[in-house]
Amino acid sequence: MTPTPIPTPALTIDEAVVDRNIARMAEWAARRGIALRPHAKTHKSVEIGRRQIAAGATGLTVATISEALVFARAGIDDLFIAYTVWVDDEKAIRLRELLQLARVRIGVDSVAAARQLAGAIPPPERDRLSVLIEIDSGHHRSGVQPERAGELAAEAQALGLRVVGVFTFPGHSYRPDGRAEAARDEAAALHTAAEALTARGVAVSVVSGGSSPSAEFADADVLTELRPGVYALGDAQQWELGSATSEQLALQVLATVVSRGANHLIVDAGSKLLSSDRGAFSTGFGRLLDHPDARIEALSEHHATITHLDLPVGTRVRIVPNHACVAVNLSDAYAVTTRDGDVAFWPIDARGCNA
Amino acid sequence: MTPTPIPTPALTIDEAVVDRNIARMAEWAARRGIALRPHAKTHKSVEIGRRQIAAGATGLTVATISEALVFARAGIDDLFIAYTVWVDDEKAIRLRELLQLARVRIGVDSVAAARQLAGAIPPPERDRLSVLIEIDSGHHRSGVQPERAGELAAEAQALGLRVVGVFTFPGHSYRPDGRAEAARDEAAALHTAAEALTARGVAVSVVSGGSSPSAEFADADVLTELRPGVYALGDAQQWELGSATSEQLALQVLATVVSRGANHLIVDAGSKLLSSDRGAFSTGFGRLLDHPDARIEALSEHHATITHLDLPVGTRVRIVPNHACVAVNLSDAYAVTTRDGDVAFWPIDARGCNA
Repeated sequence: MTPTPIPTPALTIDEAVVDRNIARMAEWAARRGIALRPHAKTHKSVEIGRRQIAAGATGLTVATISEALVFARAGIDDLFIAYTVWVDDEKAIRLRELLQLARVRIGVDSVAAARQLAGAIPPPERDRLSVLIEIDSGHHRSGVQPERAGELAAEAQALGLRVVGVFTFPGHSYRPDGRAEAARDEAAALHTAAEALTARGVAVSVVSGGSSPSAEFADADVLTELRPGVYALGDAQQWELGSATSEQLALQVLATVVSRGANHLIVDAGSKLLSSDRGAFSTGFGRLLDHPDARIEALSEHHATITHLDLPVGTRVRIVPNHACVAVNLSDAYAVTTRDGDVAFWPIDARGCNA
Repeated sequence: MTPTPIPTPALTIDEAVVDRNIARMAEWAARRGIALRPHAKTHKSVEIGRRQIAAGATGLTVATISEALVFARAGIDDLFIAYTVWVDDEKAIRLRELLQLARVRIGVDSVAAARQLAGAIPPPERDRLSVLIEIDSGHHRSGVQPERAGELAAEAQALGLRVVGVFTFPGHSYRPDGRAEAARDEAAALHTAAEALTARGVAVSVVSGGSSPSAEFADADVLTELRPGVYALGDAQQWELGSATSEQLALQVLATVVSRGANHLIVDAGSKLLSSDRGAFSTGFGRLLDHPDARIEALSEHHATITHLDLPVGTRVRIVPNHACVAVNLSDAYAVTTRDGDVAFWPIDARGCNA
């Protein structure tokens, strides 16, 4: 319960907790000699991105060209679009604009996409563009098999692209007791892929991995770079996976009890604020920070159904969303509890930047 | 595959299909003598709301005060906030602003909320405010039991609020073969509740129900008003439930194949555009309009994993989102294919209006 004038439902963060989370991961990476390139798709905030850079991050990771443009226009000039973008005519225009503002790395996992990229960005404009080959380390989404990375890298290089290394997303780290194993898979796959590039005569300067659940197990002998995202804000998934403590949960949705049933409460935050993301391991559609036994059993757009809790109508509660990245993308601004206890509003600058 | 210059991923609608959907429901309601008050939380668009009013809707339904303000400022002056709003000080300010612009109905399901509402809106400002008692007709979310509606209505009236009837959302219509049954439950519960009001001396002029899946089974002998939302756009849930045909699906996400695995494709529309909503009855996270056998097996934020389909990288596909209301809330505008084949952009005016 937070007695503030903020209208509910509202997305809130705690500045002090965000800063601590940023410092902790920066220290971890510095201690191991791994470059940190946080994924900004989580927070979509220029303010938070700048704090990550100030704490030592070498640049930011983003998912789309439009996200990259938001951060580049704000002066963050080293960006990795960790995605196999299909650079059609429209995207070529924006990618060329981006290259005026920042050094840009982009992901490739097919010869067709490499050819498309090379055709979209003429050689004179490629100075600040480099390519990483995406490999599949066990998540089975995008990315080539590690042993095929050398062949693809050589073909991309033959097309005139500057290939500088390999990357992966070990998304299968999102399982209880699967975090360390995913980090081992990540290191093994990246090692195989890097060797495959070297065997084809492609010099490897970047070996990039990382997800928030696997980050603490990342192999510093293999990885040169880590790209966790959620760690800055925390969420119920990280909490339930064991990769965040309750003290590291900076992000909460403030909601009000609006109805009481015989065995449940209804609060005014639903899937249009929390998102309906729910891992197979999740206990519900988010967690209540001050009521750990309560369960969010169901969500509609503007209703969350909560069991194992009874409170009067009108009471405010704090909900930790399951998945920070998608919850953040549903609001225009964070209501920030600042270090001195005031409320500030930070825009979610890259909200909706999907293209 | 649509050869347009629209960047992917993009939320698109077909103007002619939207207009046909609006006309069809309007005719259905007119034939049965039921007032139509479409739920605007689905489309969040002033343009579409105006077309619904022009086709005969008596007003619009919304979920929040901020949604209501968007439509009221655009000149739509008869609005039902079908939600048990807890009107705290901040909401009182905006509700009073709204009452300057529109006649407003609001939902109540507890004495506490009725007292809060009465305290927030002083008698001189209540002229354009009326209240409907929300009842539970089987969805088991908010709402009192039908037989208790009379008692609550009498108490709200004693607090000086103008109670004009009852409403329900038969959300348990979202089951295959459950649509007609939910409509029967809705009619029975509304009938019981209306009688309970009458027995307490509260005159009933509004008996309001409706969801898109149950709409065609709505009981015109009981209901005076219907509030379907999704019918205007259609979605994969309605398609798979049998409450929309493929010709009635106006809403699609245009996406590009960006990666190919051994047995799957990846396209560039994920949960940040489609949402991760998925009914227990859904075959996947959306459907491909031109490839009915394909299945969307998994979503991440910017990736959809599609099986039972093989297409070259760079190919465009059209995805029907599972749930229109939450997908629409993730974009700033519709890319509209107009009647004359051009592309127009209609703003999603009430996107993010959660409070």
